[in-house]
Amino acid sequence: MSRLTLDVNDVLASRIGAHGLQPEEIESLEPAARAAHERLASLRASGNLGFWSLPGDAAVRDPAIALGEELARRWENVVVLGIGGSSLGARAVVSALGGPFHNLRPASERKGARLFFPDNSDPATFAALLDLLDLSKTCFLAITKSGGTAETLSQLLVVRERLGAKTKEQVVAITDPASGALRKIAEAEGWRTLPVPPKVGGRFSVLTAVGLVPIAAAGLDARAVCAGADAMRARCEEPALRRNPAYLLAGLHHLFDTKKGRNIHVLFPYADALRDVGDWYVQLWAESLGKNERTGPTPIRAVGATDQHSMLQLLMEGPQDKLVTFVAVETPAADLVLPAAWTGQDALAYLGGKRMSQLIDAERVGTAAALAEAGRPSLTLRLPRVDGHGVGELLFLWEAATAFAGFLYGVDPFDQPGVEASKKITQGLLGRAGSEKYVEGLEARQQRDERFVI
Amino acid sequence: MSRLTLDVNDVLASRIGAHGLQPEEIESLEPAARAAHERLASLRASGNLGFWSLPGDAAVRDPAIALGEELARRWENVVVLGIGGSSLGARAVVSALGGPFHNLRPASERKGARLFFPDNSDPATFAALLDLLDLSKTCFLAITKSGGTAETLSQLLVVRERLGAKTKEQVVAITDPASGALRKIAEAEGWRTLPVPPKVGGRFSVLTAVGLVPIAAAGLDARAVCAGADAMRARCEEPALRRNPAYLLAGLHHLFDTKKGRNIHVLFPYADALRDVGDWYVQLWAESLGKNERTGPTPIRAVGATDQHSMLQLLMEGPQDKLVTFVAVETPAADLVLPAAWTGQDALAYLGGKRMSQLIDAERVGTAAALAEAGRPSLTLRLPRVDGHGVGELLFLWEAATAFAGFLYGVDPFDQPGVEASKKITQGLLGRAGSEKYVEGLEARQQRDERFVI
Repeated sequence: MSRLTLDVNDVLASRIGAHGLQPEEIESLEPAARAAHERLASLRASGNLGFWSLPGDAAVRDPAIALGEELARRWENVVVLGIGGSSLGARAVVSALGGPFHNLRPASERKGARLFFPDNSDPATFAALLDLLDLSKTCFLAITKSGGTAETLSQLLVVRERLGAKTKEQVVAITDPASGALRKIAEAEGWRTLPVPPKVGGRFSVLTAVGLVPIAAAGLDARAVCAGADAMRARCEEPALRRNPAYLLAGLHHLFDTKKGRNIHVLFPYADALRDVGDWYVQLWAESLGKNERTGPTPIRAVGATDQHSMLQLLMEGPQDKLVTFVAVETPAADLVLPAAWTGQDALAYLGGKRMSQLIDAERVGTAAALAEAGRPSLTLRLPRVDGHGVGELLFLWEAATAFAGFLYGVDPFDQPGVEASKKITQGLLGRAGSEKYVEGLEARQQRDERFVI
Repeated sequence: MSRLTLDVNDVLASRIGAHGLQPEEIESLEPAARAAHERLASLRASGNLGFWSLPGDAAVRDPAIALGEELARRWENVVVLGIGGSSLGARAVVSALGGPFHNLRPASERKGARLFFPDNSDPATFAALLDLLDLSKTCFLAITKSGGTAETLSQLLVVRERLGAKTKEQVVAITDPASGALRKIAEAEGWRTLPVPPKVGGRFSVLTAVGLVPIAAAGLDARAVCAGADAMRARCEEPALRRNPAYLLAGLHHLFDTKKGRNIHVLFPYADALRDVGDWYVQLWAESLGKNERTGPTPIRAVGATDQHSMLQLLMEGPQDKLVTFVAVETPAADLVLPAAWTGQDALAYLGGKRMSQLIDAERVGTAAALAEAGRPSLTLRLPRVDGHGVGELLFLWEAATAFAGFLYGVDPFDQPGVEASKKITQGLLGRAGSEKYVEGLEARQQRDERFVI
């Protein structure tokens, strides 16, 4: 069976010259990789690497998919009230598998509900959404692992008021099984709930109810996503760096960052369908690895061929501080044959008779080759298709690579202590009881010198 | 009249400590700023700074808006066949002013056409779009300044075949007035055309027909965008750094990059409506300034509060290599009052009775304050509203800042030589006559060592 592959030829000095790696440099990663592998294996064995076993965990998967399928049959619209890890995974998969116009297509051409992800506290978006939808045909998934996320609870307050007595029927809560504000509310109000497994962090939760319910609600093949992820999981348990795609992917990023100054990591899929996978990757890589002033790569997402017209100039001629990972799709979801150009228009002749997929593929190959000839490294992930299996492989690969990279960088990839300070000040500004101390003296400290406002 | 302001208090050492600037450091930018100002003024005077005079140029503006308004009345759908600078500006303004659900709203609630930007050579997207739309109700804008953009011409070949004899009525070409493949085709076929002024580069072309036709076709206020841009243009002709928002914005980015190692520039608007302005900014900043290995900042776009749950950990605790520019919106396009939390749910009490705009604003203030307290600098652009005038101010500000930054960095902000190598290889791969030399020996050079594919 065809599967995702990782091609690292274009990092080799034999291909790209002085900025490339000698094979021995790759081999030199082996001891650190072995140590990181032992730690991961021990965390897995003790049940403390929560996300690892999710792809094959029927107890998590089956109720989530069953609920999602029920919603797909029953509702015209499903709105995810969730932000960050409670939105990005499902959003990535729905836009990969549902296609760019999922919500615009008539109901007869969809297998499930329209999906909306108002993952912000932006009143303009949320007010417009509530105006747009027929609320009697809409189900709301309130998703927050901690149960206390301000953006999500704010939206929930508004939705509960709009739905009134129907709230119980039209809201499902996905949250910690035992603690947190949303759990307490859902139990007091008698809402349906599904749990987020306590040992799975938000950004690693796409294969729990957090992701699987919305994916299935959109009528998409959540089981194939799990199967693809499970196939990749098996490959990522291989101890040898050179046979484990997650280890090799993470190891090369770590090596280029810490030894070669390439601290900006660009994920560059050549498929519109994978645009939102890029946003999911940015959160995963940034929040997991950005832990101290000495290390912490900055992830960027681009989409090819589009961003050849945006980022390529910088990638080709700018500072040698980036490592690009292309994602190639071998068989497109649909294709178009370009008609022969008409007489006299020689500038078009080379396009006529080609498939549009040949063009985008030639653009990707041309860009990778141009980077290589300019002495700049890249990696290529080859995905047989953008289908559930392939997307599952891709997501799990990056999750495993992130965990592994955390150990290489010497940071805890599963926490995010740096986001607390902002939250506390926000709560203080809104007058939350007990948070007054976080805004004490803030106004004086924030005093603005008008000479510096123009 | 209220206007966009730039607040630089949070870069001062008096506010953020050792990583901040002394007022003298800002003053020290003055001589370089003066020199760059003289160059810009001289380019303006000689008519060689094409984008500068666009906001008040009725000869460019009026025919474009008139055509857009005609399309708005006549067509249900307008599809922009364009990529990069031929898409990003219109896309940014349409999503800022049309709102997140412009294309989903019923025709009676829109003032113009639905707008689509399939700005890629992705066959899955384009095939799905052609299936989705009733082509008899659809107008196609073929936009390419050079006239030879492969992605756009490919789409045009397919569209011409589908429309057949109707092509002449349903396609408008926006391209160089005299040269290039699209100009030649349009004249041979008798299509309607509008020109892109020859001295305006693609990424600076939003206020030509390239941007104004699609904006007006969506029923949005293109005149207000020009008026806002023109108001900002006047402010950006001020020679003194400390009274010119574009110079101050560019000068601080250049200073923090070259003197303080902050080479990653994050545009962080707290409004979903400005998400695509971020993509436009990324192209503008990256392609204009990424010209050599020594300099070339990497731009990133984020959206608040959403990306507090994605990038904030890295911004707060990661390497000191970033400068954040927040965009605050003073009056939201719509607001929602959060109902009082119900009894017993104390965790929600602090949200009840607040407006949702207070929450997102407290999140922005909390994040800026947390960064400042962690000794990390930021700038804040304050936009009175996300309306045509405000968006026009914002776009022109960044265009002027980009031109100015180019001179500070010592690079030509108006070219993009680095994108050619990839194009040539792509054309060679597709067998374009005359491009064979670019792929000579490529296959041998690309020979992949299977040991490095896993």
